[in-house]
Amino acid sequence: MSTATFFTPVQSGITLVEARMRSQADLDAHPDMAAALEQLLQAGGKRVRPTVVLLAGNMLGADRDKLVTLGAAVEMLHTATLVHDDLIDSSLLRRGMPTLNSKWSPAATVLTGDFLFARAASLAAEVNNIELMKKFAETLATIVNGELTQLFAAHGVISRENYYSRIYAKTASLFEMCALSAALIGSQDESIQAALKVYGYEVGMAFQIVDDVLDFSGEQHIVGKPLGSDLLQGLVTLPAIYYAEGHPDDPLVKLLARGHWQDEAKMMQLVASVRRSDAVQLALGEAAAHIERALEALSIFPFSVEREALADLARYILDRRI
Amino acid sequence: MSTATFFTPVQSGITLVEARMRSQADLDAHPDMAAALEQLLQAGGKRVRPTVVLLAGNMLGADRDKLVTLGAAVEMLHTATLVHDDLIDSSLLRRGMPTLNSKWSPAATVLTGDFLFARAASLAAEVNNIELMKKFAETLATIVNGELTQLFAAHGVISRENYYSRIYAKTASLFEMCALSAALIGSQDESIQAALKVYGYEVGMAFQIVDDVLDFSGEQHIVGKPLGSDLLQGLVTLPAIYYAEGHPDDPLVKLLARGHWQDEAKMMQLVASVRRSDAVQLALGEAAAHIERALEALSIFPFSVEREALADLARYILDRRI
Repeated sequence: MSTATFFTPVQSGITLVEARMRSQADLDAHPDMAAALEQLLQAGGKRVRPTVVLLAGNMLGADRDKLVTLGAAVEMLHTATLVHDDLIDSSLLRRGMPTLNSKWSPAATVLTGDFLFARAASLAAEVNNIELMKKFAETLATIVNGELTQLFAAHGVISRENYYSRIYAKTASLFEMCALSAALIGSQDESIQAALKVYGYEVGMAFQIVDDVLDFSGEQHIVGKPLGSDLLQGLVTLPAIYYAEGHPDDPLVKLLARGHWQDEAKMMQLVASVRRSDAVQLALGEAAAHIERALEALSIFPFSVEREALADLARYILDRRI
Repeated sequence: MSTATFFTPVQSGITLVEARMRSQADLDAHPDMAAALEQLLQAGGKRVRPTVVLLAGNMLGADRDKLVTLGAAVEMLHTATLVHDDLIDSSLLRRGMPTLNSKWSPAATVLTGDFLFARAASLAAEVNNIELMKKFAETLATIVNGELTQLFAAHGVISRENYYSRIYAKTASLFEMCALSAALIGSQDESIQAALKVYGYEVGMAFQIVDDVLDFSGEQHIVGKPLGSDLLQGLVTLPAIYYAEGHPDDPLVKLLARGHWQDEAKMMQLVASVRRSDAVQLALGEAAAHIERALEALSIFPFSVEREALADLARYILDRRI
């Protein structure tokens, strides 16, 4: 399936979103910072989140300019969390070896993220919808709290409850916010808002599960990071959880349960065992169930190009390999 | 002058603000984080900013609960910027010597600040006033952008323009936001909003000038940090600017202008010269002019306990020694 299927109806909208983000960087930032932001914006992925905003909003006939503003706000918020994440990960992983990414100091990195948060909040406020603003702030709190929990408490924990709340905070909360906020702009109807909220939630949960599966099943040169990197950081994701449930007596599982996730050789053995087992398929099955529920949520809407594109986007989540 | 003069009318309000802040920490934070936040909240100064909010709002008969929410939002925003500031300063000052404040890792510090930002934004959104929310987001952007400018561009620069925009970003923007936002809650009258905005701005500018004066004139054991610490970080504040303007041929001034602010011995000589000169008095005179304008802005309001307390608070800024 080509990504063009669902990006096509919003291509011009995404161009406007990117222009909007860029104008925020130029606004009043110091020149060094403006250049850094420009680079961050250019590097930024496939714009899946603004695509959800635009498709859902256009489906409801929402004000185009507000959707573009919201799209820029969510993408900037997403970028801000990535900037702080990178700083956090490098300081966790440093272990006596200085990170080579010396382009920015930690100070500049912290402030770059803060600046993006501030600009994201400004954009969200510009939409002029207080419910949306509340959801935006709540989502930011959820994301940060999730990162805090991950930092303090998630290492080596084999727990579905822990996992689901972590991926909600990390990924699904923002997708949920995208779809719900577009609905808040486009409709007063609470059943429409609820349906799109469900769509965003389910797509977001599936998105993160597939991401976590790729950490086990992906081709390293495509995923762009070493396989099993989550486990080596002590993050026990769904494939490992399925494997642990199915093989409670495997010495490697017992090792992980006792908190020995820092034993790299053993954990790489565990990765290989997970890959050989049915755990990856079981995890993908769970992602597929989320996508089914996302498609179900769309069924209340009459046919439209945008509804079909939202459905394609949901199905694409399952197929993606990067 | 006793601080009680202007704190008295809002004492019960401040108690509510602190309870509101505390409830945000408890809300859904990880236990370690909740404990850290509790400590931050307990440590937090005199609550001058919420006091401005409550006095200005009560003067206008604004909704009490909204004022308490706004007061908690601004104090949390202030605390968030301090948390990130501390991280930034320590990484700048480290110079081969690890900071002893090892209680939190940089990662936890970044996220603690982010969590406070998120909670501050949530509280601001709860006030249910979109103009206020826009001002809140804009102020956050101003503060962060000021920090970025300071980090990248302010070192060793002897410039009034640079100085004024820096202290507006660092301090006056938030005071302005406090007073204006209280007016947005309490009144539709634009002249009332404008007057309180001026009051907040002028008080904030004076507040930072006095702070900067204390870095030269203060008693070290009261100020709690070494005298001249701004200059040693390359931050040229108003007393040094006045001195440089009055003594352009002083070799120490020429040294500073050529960017030699890292020469500690010479800079300490410069601090001594500034202290002996009239520069401190000239800078205080400028702060006094700001306070005059703050009092003038209050003159459109009829007499009330709150108006007098706002005036006392403004005058107190000039008298403070810590």
